[in-house]
Amino acid sequence: MTQRLSYAFVLLAMTGLSVSFSQKNENDVRKLLTDQVSAWNAGDIEGFMRGYWKSDSTEFVSGGNVTRGYRNVLARYKKSYDTREKMGKLEFSELLVRMVAPQMAIATGVWRLTRLEDQPWGRFTLILEQKREGWRIVYDHTSSAN
Amino acid sequence: MTQRLSYAFVLLAMTGLSVSFSQKNENDVRKLLTDQVSAWNAGDIEGFMRGYWKSDSTEFVSGGNVTRGYRNVLARYKKSYDTREKMGKLEFSELLVRMVAPQMAIATGVWRLTRLEDQPWGRFTLILEQKREGWRIVYDHTSSAN
Repeated sequence: MTQRLSYAFVLLAMTGLSVSFSQKNENDVRKLLTDQVSAWNAGDIEGFMRGYWKSDSTEFVSGGNVTRGYRNVLARYKKSYDTREKMGKLEFSELLVRMVAPQMAIATGVWRLTRLEDQPWGRFTLILEQKREGWRIVYDHTSSAN
Repeated sequence: MTQRLSYAFVLLAMTGLSVSFSQKNENDVRKLLTDQVSAWNAGDIEGFMRGYWKSDSTEFVSGGNVTRGYRNVLARYKKSYDTREKMGKLEFSELLVRMVAPQMAIATGVWRLTRLEDQPWGRFTLILEQKREGWRIVYDHTSSAN
């Protein structure tokens, strides 16, 4: 009976540990996205880009285009948003984070820029991987509402 | 020595097995997409939809919209493509299938419709899961080139 109880305890502890690891991962992914929003709203594109994996295989898909490689994604953001007015104020909503493998997460949600002239918005699908340096976006599919 | 050799053999066999399972999964995912294209080009939207998981949680994201549930995704396709002329001829290209977990794959690529009046195209990101009934798309983010 004592042995059974201790099995039950170990099982319970392991389940709890696993849940708490998973929760920590989800929190880390959410923090990465919150940090991105803060950096963007401070006009700091390099800071925003810290959420992406610094790799030649990082991909950003938008409309019919695919941009490959961290440097090219950074260059694309810098070109498209070369003034604070164009950057506007960024908000994410409807954020859903799914842990799909021990070191992989998929995050989906809505992005919205509030600018003087317009309010562009749309949806994003992000694949994130846990790298040595932390969680990073390795693939980003972003689309715009018409 | 014999024991070492047999360890090496078992390890090799296991690696081979794992590679071949992974290859089989990738082939199954590719076949699902090829079957979708064939169904589409035969004017069979129900057949095309067999690639999606028949579940209320299946999601289709396009532009700023998200359509939730198999039935709603089917209804959306039927409404947007209510004639053979609108369906046109579908082609997928630049197809990349990544096995990201034992029962999960991510497929990315380019879609293109060749129609009498125009040739709309864009990119897709699919999340597929291996269900009891086979591999099925559980999440689809599709965007259009301008």
